[in-house]
Amino acid sequence: MDRSPVPPVHTERPSLVTPSRLPVPHTPEDWPIAAAMLQFPPHAADGTPVSKLDPEEWRRLLQPVVDEGFTHLELSTAWLPLGDLDRARLTALGDVLADAGLAVPGVGVVRQSVLHPERGQHNLAFSHRTIDAAAALGADIVCLGLHDTLTPEQQRALWFWTVPPDEAPADPEVRGLAVRRFRELGDHAADLGVELSLELYENTYLGSADEAIRFLDDIGHDAVGLNPDLGNLIRQQRPIDTWEYLVSVTLPRANYWHIKNYARLEDPAAGTVLTHPTSLELGIVNYRAAVRYAIAHGFTGAFVVEHYGGDGLSVGAANAAYLRRILPRTG
Amino acid sequence: MDRSPVPPVHTERPSLVTPSRLPVPHTPEDWPIAAAMLQFPPHAADGTPVSKLDPEEWRRLLQPVVDEGFTHLELSTAWLPLGDLDRARLTALGDVLADAGLAVPGVGVVRQSVLHPERGQHNLAFSHRTIDAAAALGADIVCLGLHDTLTPEQQRALWFWTVPPDEAPADPEVRGLAVRRFRELGDHAADLGVELSLELYENTYLGSADEAIRFLDDIGHDAVGLNPDLGNLIRQQRPIDTWEYLVSVTLPRANYWHIKNYARLEDPAAGTVLTHPTSLELGIVNYRAAVRYAIAHGFTGAFVVEHYGGDGLSVGAANAAYLRRILPRTG
Amino acid sequence: MDRSPVPPVHTERPSLVTPSRLPVPHTPEDWPIAAAMLQFPPHAADGTPVSKLDPEEWRRLLQPVVDEGFTHLELSTAWLPLGDLDRARLTALGDVLADAGLAVPGVGVVRQSVLHPERGQHNLAFSHRTIDAAAALGADIVCLGLHDTLTPEQQRALWFWTVPPDEAPADPEVRGLAVRRFRELGDHAADLGVELSLELYENTYLGSADEAIRFLDDIGHDAVGLNPDLGNLIRQQRPIDTWEYLVSVTLPRANYWHIKNYARLEDPAAGTVLTHPTSLELGIVNYRAAVRYAIAHGFTGAFVVEHYGGDGLSVGAANAAYLRRILPRTG
Repeated sequence: MDRSPVPPVHTERPSLVTPSRLPVPHTPEDWPIAAAMLQFPPHAADGTPVSKLDPEEWRRLLQPVVDEGFTHLELSTAWLPLGDLDRARLTALGDVLADAGLAVPGVGVVRQSVLHPERGQHNLAFSHRTIDAAAALGADIVCLGLHDTLTPEQQRALWFWTVPPDEAPADPEVRGLAVRRFRELGDHAADLGVELSLELYENTYLGSADEAIRFLDDIGHDAVGLNPDLGNLIRQQRPIDTWEYLVSVTLPRANYWHIKNYARLEDPAAGTVLTHPTSLELGIVNYRAAVRYAIAHGFTGAFVVEHYGGDGLSVGAANAAYLRRILPRTG
Repeated sequence: MDRSPVPPVHTERPSLVTPSRLPVPHTPEDWPIAAAMLQFPPHAADGTPVSKLDPEEWRRLLQPVVDEGFTHLELSTAWLPLGDLDRARLTALGDVLADAGLAVPGVGVVRQSVLHPERGQHNLAFSHRTIDAAAALGADIVCLGLHDTLTPEQQRALWFWTVPPDEAPADPEVRGLAVRRFRELGDHAADLGVELSLELYENTYLGSADEAIRFLDDIGHDAVGLNPDLGNLIRQQRPIDTWEYLVSVTLPRANYWHIKNYARLEDPAAGTVLTHPTSLELGIVNYRAAVRYAIAHGFTGAFVVEHYGGDGLSVGAANAAYLRRILPRTG
Repeated sequence: MDRSPVPPVHTERPSLVTPSRLPVPHTPEDWPIAAAMLQFPPHAADGTPVSKLDPEEWRRLLQPVVDEGFTHLELSTAWLPLGDLDRARLTALGDVLADAGLAVPGVGVVRQSVLHPERGQHNLAFSHRTIDAAAALGADIVCLGLHDTLTPEQQRALWFWTVPPDEAPADPEVRGLAVRRFRELGDHAADLGVELSLELYENTYLGSADEAIRFLDDIGHDAVGLNPDLGNLIRQQRPIDTWEYLVSVTLPRANYWHIKNYARLEDPAAGTVLTHPTSLELGIVNYRAAVRYAIAHGFTGAFVVEHYGGDGLSVGAANAAYLRRILPRTG
């Protein structure tokens, strides 16, 4: 295997024990838990892009989200490039969401890195426009990341994360550019009452718990927080920080949470690691402990229940039910 | 590993997007979803074969199917060789099923290939008699395959599919014999208002999506369709066609559907593939998309919820509930 | 891999078929099914050991068990060393359990082997005191084992069982000492109307089905039975007895049952085995068959639903619901 050299990982397992009583910002029933759109194709059966469809068709495409019991949805630019909709279409989309009874706590800008060698400037402009659109839809969060489109080899793989992506560029000037661009986007977001949430993702400046915190600190902006998408790190088929370490370092900075879990099979003697998506309950992360720890450290944001493989919407609904069961009650 | 040479696999991922509104032949509540009998032993605790038991005992053995909420059951010749029951016993069996509230949409002839080198002629005759029995019980489908009894090495394995079976014979005369025998069985079935469904199964003439379609085309009989048992192919611990390709090619020919899912862990760099049975929701195939695609292409048949490993009946009941949740509604 | 030489394993798969009607000692609703405490930390958020906390705090820590619907709990000495509580504190604990509506069918003495080279005598004395405490709390069972604290290498592993533990000492005098100490504890337990249950665990004198039965036979005490914790054996990443063999040999001796399941992925040609915790339904053991077999052979004891990885309490609750669904009804 010609993988990149791997930094030493944190093998310690800090205690995540929390007080038995927590001040909680929402009841379990009211906490915003949004469906994700990972399995929503960007075009209709006849090939028409979703952005060109009639609002009635948008409404029909969203019905399965409603049928699975969701009241919240993360809109994804991979499904519908919100930043490119004109005002009338955006209003129509808002009406569709209202009709479906779906609030939008966050908008995800998917695989459009502001650092892309060719499209970075374009992606920056698109991210600005998406912030405007998110604010118009009443979203509190725009989620951004430094990962971009999958490589052809990743696209051919059953699970794209089994093929390592390119490494983040080592050049400090590039990193400085990323910091400046996220500050600029943070200023824009703050003006509109929106926050940004940057997503943990392997082989980027947000590629480990420690790196992500350093990166956030360098940005140093009140409107820029973390999306502690632990699944993006624990599914790597190489040595990883313990999940307890990841939780202890990242959750106190979280303002939004893509939440998913993975099975992880290891043979330490042979160095084998294989991973597979699974439900929140059945994967390696104890989300009962992680969620309590997050709340004890001030987390009040929305959950987005992502799941790769199989029927992600259905597993997401099961995961939402799980979260409502384990979220702490006041008093 | 001394595995057979593997044909090139289809790595493309055709879009399975369907219109947002589908004409549906059954409501989700009424669609026939049958329990499978994979975990039903062919004998009682004292060793008496099921075929020799009293009807009252048959009734008791079927009660767990009822308790799990099923209203349909695929009768399996591995449990009870229907083709060998006399008329009175068959009537008694029908009474037992009626008393249990279990309809029989299909009968499975299990691992009795009409191509077996020694027992092929015997299996052909047994298949004919099973068609008669199925018609007498009101079943619409008899499911047949070209796979036969497991090898001793497969029987010793935890999962038999981790030990490759023998290859289908390369001799075109043998293939021609299979075509003729299925035509002959198809004629018999059609006379009785029954259809045959041939099961996808590795290392047979139904061992890949492309092969299965070619084989069906060569049979060329209106009463002979496909059982697109994707699980039988995706569990192979070697390179496989993408599940999207399998769905796109096989589902339009399906008239009956053994439906099951698998986790599949891969390390592309090392060439490692390991698989494990899992629920419809958690495996690699997105059955929400696959079922919609099937219906868009005319599927109206019964589902049979199979699951190997653990408590297959219980997982089958969970899978049936999942299917009822994701089956599209009319209008 | 520098693993110990592995004894030949049983590859036979004895039939576990049971009569269709079983005499059952409890209804499915009344059968005692206890939560396990594997995920309960031994200290509060401020580091105070659980043994030093106020009863009100004990009560709050147990509330999640109640919220998950349990009416029974296995108290674990890893959470609270019962044998070291004074009488007043033990009474207070009993009041807390009564207030929570939690009965205690058994107490687990966790990783404190009476054979430990240095602490064996100490652990023996602690086991005696725990028997006294268990009796005072109305428990029927004290569960003991010959496995001790994890090695540092096991603690660093994601799953400790992927790093083999030390072998049981070969010295027959050590084995004789174990037999005598369990007899001594059995005498004490019998005096108080309590039974001991010895836990199957790899690389101990209870490290296989055959060894465990020989060991029990050598102890030869009416108050000493088996805890057939199959999960402890089937998760080993090396060849194992078939689960059917394990069930057939161990269940007839069971008086208490730590019940859990594992996925097990194998490549026989490469000799690869990888395991992962999963729900009772989805793992390799068919617990519908195993539970019926146990009852047919006289099992009347409590189940303890253990699960490693992720949120064990939540998976335990799902497993309890599963058991209530498949437990046989009288008549």
